[in-house]
Amino acid sequence: MDKYEKVFELAKRRGFLWNSFELYGGSRGFYDYGPLGSTLKRRIEQTWREFYVIQEGFMEIECPTIGIEDVFIASGHVGGFSDPLCECMNCKEAFRADHLVENVMSAAGTLSAEDLTNVIKENGVRCPECGGEFGEAYEFNLMFKTTIGPGTGRQGYLRPETAQGMFVDFQRLSKFYRDKLPFGAVQIGKSYRNEIAPRQGVIRLREFTQAECEIFVDPRNKKHPNFERFADRELVLYSQEAQQKGESFRMTVREAVEAGVIAHEVLGYNIALTNEFLTKVGINPAKLRFRQHLKDEMAHYAIDCWDAEIETDRFGWVEIVGIADRTDYDLKAHARVSKTELYVYVEYDEPKMVTRFAVKPNMGKLGPVFKGKAKAVADALKQLSEEELSRNEIKITVGGEELTVSSDMVSFAEETVKVSGENVIPHVIEPSYGIDRIFYGVMEHAFDEENVAQKAAESGLKGTEEAGNESEAIKDEKDAESEEEIRLVMHFSSAVAPVQVTVLPLLTRKELADPAKEIIAKLREKTLLVNYDDSGTIGRRYRRNDEIGTPYSVTVDYDTLEDGTVTIRDRDSMRQIRAPIKGIENVLYELIYRGRDFESTGKPFNF
Amino acid sequence: MDKYEKVFELAKRRGFLWNSFELYGGSRGFYDYGPLGSTLKRRIEQTWREFYVIQEGFMEIECPTIGIEDVFIASGHVGGFSDPLCECMNCKEAFRADHLVENVMSAAGTLSAEDLTNVIKENGVRCPECGGEFGEAYEFNLMFKTTIGPGTGRQGYLRPETAQGMFVDFQRLSKFYRDKLPFGAVQIGKSYRNEIAPRQGVIRLREFTQAECEIFVDPRNKKHPNFERFADRELVLYSQEAQQKGESFRMTVREAVEAGVIAHEVLGYNIALTNEFLTKVGINPAKLRFRQHLKDEMAHYAIDCWDAEIETDRFGWVEIVGIADRTDYDLKAHARVSKTELYVYVEYDEPKMVTRFAVKPNMGKLGPVFKGKAKAVADALKQLSEEELSRNEIKITVGGEELTVSSDMVSFAEETVKVSGENVIPHVIEPSYGIDRIFYGVMEHAFDEENVAQKAAESGLKGTEEAGNESEAIKDEKDAESEEEIRLVMHFSSAVAPVQVTVLPLLTRKELADPAKEIIAKLREKTLLVNYDDSGTIGRRYRRNDEIGTPYSVTVDYDTLEDGTVTIRDRDSMRQIRAPIKGIENVLYELIYRGRDFESTGKPFNF
Repeated sequence: MDKYEKVFELAKRRGFLWNSFELYGGSRGFYDYGPLGSTLKRRIEQTWREFYVIQEGFMEIECPTIGIEDVFIASGHVGGFSDPLCECMNCKEAFRADHLVENVMSAAGTLSAEDLTNVIKENGVRCPECGGEFGEAYEFNLMFKTTIGPGTGRQGYLRPETAQGMFVDFQRLSKFYRDKLPFGAVQIGKSYRNEIAPRQGVIRLREFTQAECEIFVDPRNKKHPNFERFADRELVLYSQEAQQKGESFRMTVREAVEAGVIAHEVLGYNIALTNEFLTKVGINPAKLRFRQHLKDEMAHYAIDCWDAEIETDRFGWVEIVGIADRTDYDLKAHARVSKTELYVYVEYDEPKMVTRFAVKPNMGKLGPVFKGKAKAVADALKQLSEEELSRNEIKITVGGEELTVSSDMVSFAEETVKVSGENVIPHVIEPSYGIDRIFYGVMEHAFDEENVAQKAAESGLKGTEEAGNESEAIKDEKDAESEEEIRLVMHFSSAVAPVQVTVLPLLTRKELADPAKEIIAKLREKTLLVNYDDSGTIGRRYRRNDEIGTPYSVTVDYDTLEDGTVTIRDRDSMRQIRAPIKGIENVLYELIYRGRDFESTGKPFNF
Repeated sequence: MDKYEKVFELAKRRGFLWNSFELYGGSRGFYDYGPLGSTLKRRIEQTWREFYVIQEGFMEIECPTIGIEDVFIASGHVGGFSDPLCECMNCKEAFRADHLVENVMSAAGTLSAEDLTNVIKENGVRCPECGGEFGEAYEFNLMFKTTIGPGTGRQGYLRPETAQGMFVDFQRLSKFYRDKLPFGAVQIGKSYRNEIAPRQGVIRLREFTQAECEIFVDPRNKKHPNFERFADRELVLYSQEAQQKGESFRMTVREAVEAGVIAHEVLGYNIALTNEFLTKVGINPAKLRFRQHLKDEMAHYAIDCWDAEIETDRFGWVEIVGIADRTDYDLKAHARVSKTELYVYVEYDEPKMVTRFAVKPNMGKLGPVFKGKAKAVADALKQLSEEELSRNEIKITVGGEELTVSSDMVSFAEETVKVSGENVIPHVIEPSYGIDRIFYGVMEHAFDEENVAQKAAESGLKGTEEAGNESEAIKDEKDAESEEEIRLVMHFSSAVAPVQVTVLPLLTRKELADPAKEIIAKLREKTLLVNYDDSGTIGRRYRRNDEIGTPYSVTVDYDTLEDGTVTIRDRDSMRQIRAPIKGIENVLYELIYRGRDFESTGKPFNF
């Protein structure tokens, strides 16, 4: 079993991830989040909200997942959101044509369907399933289609990204923020890609969750007001240049922006923010890098684009976040298709005096001569240059007819006027997160198999995890751990662990269960996620909670009844302390949210 | 403008609800939640989680919104999830056929498409849009269809409810709960109904959010362990019988269950829980009732079903929650289509001694005689009755062939065995919430237009809302309120208000802005949702916050700099108190979450 399989085995068994429609044989590209998975996912999303909505102040909106066709014509998805598909003529299995020739050539992803067909033919590429010959490759649009309303109805699509909602709502959002740049909006929700042949589990889903943020900035000012916050933070960068050498490097955000490695401050700040978020939810910093898009993979309109990539055991480096400067491409595209101007009126700090050439047709003279055409004549005059207007007989064309206007019918001059602002089409900086991939990354990076005896020795523990209870003389409850015992443990960060504390009465007796339940009530009052577990030996219950990544276990035993203390066990070190029940909720809250040192919380126990 | 229009005007203007795809002319049946709407909606959902996940202990799962066909064949949606559709032959507009004849007859909803066609013809019902004649009515399936994968792919549907996910995952869930009944699971997410002609705004959406809970209970025990919690709670019930008289009545849950008005305790408890939830998020209890499904509207398999209905200005009584006992219908349907047994093995409290009739074929004698057929002969013998086995020559049929077995080849006897449990197909109790309708109900029930002067008099205020600042001698900031001034106010419950506190520096000067921002930081630390607003007069800012339902405003003025106090204003009474900055975060937290009395928090001010 490779690590992916091991993680999935645990994920299925303990209720993190289940194959969707398993009862009916399943369907590729779909997964269910079980009780613990759904909680873990929600906590990742909640942490994301704390970063983007609360700290950054970008309000969240929620748009439908079904979209009408115009939106995706403007966004370019109707025309260009496709993968090259190739079908085996024998077994009818469909494949990504570019994936079929990956072993034959590099950069297959940039080839047209026609070129791919040729490469497949020339290299005699055969079906990996049955050895059959392939038909022609063609572009397959990845949007799920549906029909809105009865009859032939209206063409609808399941959105391939949440971003378009923010662009379509741009005017409403701008008004909400009282037309002050920069502003931003976020959306967390389902997106859909009808993948041709998803074969990578939760890494390539047909239905997935995105968290996207669209930050609308003044194109003339891409400095970030809060840049200093992360300026000296070191990032692992894998720039276009570094990719030629095949080696990433470390550099501070400030240096990267100053050296032009990262295009500007807003982008640099947002890359650093992504770095902060990912490590906070439990991505291993040693397996995280930021890779710049190469010129030929970047969209033609983008100024700069970086992917957060994480290293995985089976799939190598996997993209989990994209951070791009998309310029004014999206707003201009929607303005064009909707025939609506999309801009923000930006006031100058102080009004400017602007000199311009002004033409003033004399309507009193034009009217009697040109009658009903006078207005059109005046408009035509306004288009003329100073030179053309300087002639005695001024020639214009109105409705195909050439007319002559005498010079006394129009005056013109340079004039200086006060201008207090101008219309600006904002640029869009977009951090776009793939929540399911982050979820899987958090699972894989948290997963560990530890030799219990070795771990205990490292942590300076004297005996097994059961030793502490021997004083209770409950020998038959003892679950001796052999030298070779391996524990599966998820080292989840407290920020996202689906269960933060488990409370364990040593035995299923009322006198121990009652105080345990009182502790649970106090912990829930502090909004902690708490479990109660009274089944099996303490050792087994510790293992069970190690597997789901519960950071702290609290054990209620007979000493509790005598001296009012309980055992708190730390998942990672397996060390234990004795602490009073009184105030235990604050102690655990501080351990979880305030980074309090474990050993400061009570009397060492069993070490 | 009726109330619906007034609420929508405010909702659009202030960022609660926007027409989806407005930039492209919109599309019926879709709405966007703007920044405040999305927050309000999320808080309603969060409160729901507190009720069902934290208090009731039903774990949340997350299944895809796209489903494969088998699931909806089993659920009955492929066969029967439809509305009768009728198209105008002249203008091609589609209508719900049953809605077209509502004025002509009662109970149109129970008619077949054929009957509806006849009623339309006989009564000469014409198109309300153009007066044209109607074609034949037919059943239109309300599921959005799509294709999963390339080519002809696999038929997929957007789920019409979240519930099926819990049924399809039943085995996984049962294992997660270690096969102990009762257990439950919930899901909050998008569901879809391709409505024929949605004309009721957010009340009838094509894409909507459901919060559904499936509680699996032992069919032999529908008592609720926690029944006493709500037993004496009075509900407004509109039972089948009451509907004949047209009058609802008040009754406690205990009485209703005892009198058989509500079928059993689990249903009674869950109706009361719904009542509790709805009033907590801000549904007006005076506009809330529980209506029992009539016999002809209830699904044939359901034992009892109640809808929570709220009274609205435009639409009358609207269903927002359904609470049903669906029996074992869903699990049996999925078992049948998936060919998988779905049950829970329920252990008896103590093993039972069960007497049963056991047949023991003697294989040593059957083998030599029947050779290859011996196993089939033995199986056939096991099916026989005591009487049949008592004959000397026992007749059986194997593979169409009649065979004779002599009595010495088989023994039989009654035997008593220990049985420790049995397989049980659980019944399902389902509370199903329509979040968007609840959202609208909360908006409409919170909405008010108040005469400010009159309100001020009621609250014992001496002057206008500006009066308190007169001591500041900032007369030009004063925004005198005329006698006729009407304030729009949303009386949101603190539990769901999208902004809980707004902090207002009297002027946009640094010496006032700085302490205001310090207060904001302290309030955010307490996880309160806080806004900062420094634009316009204090009076205007109060009005602006009344409109979005902010329960408390904190004003920082020049007295703050001298004596360290601020003004807290209560939205509903418009009364104000002076309280010290020190500890203000706790005071506001207690006002919002602990129901602390407003006047206990400081020195009365301006009254």
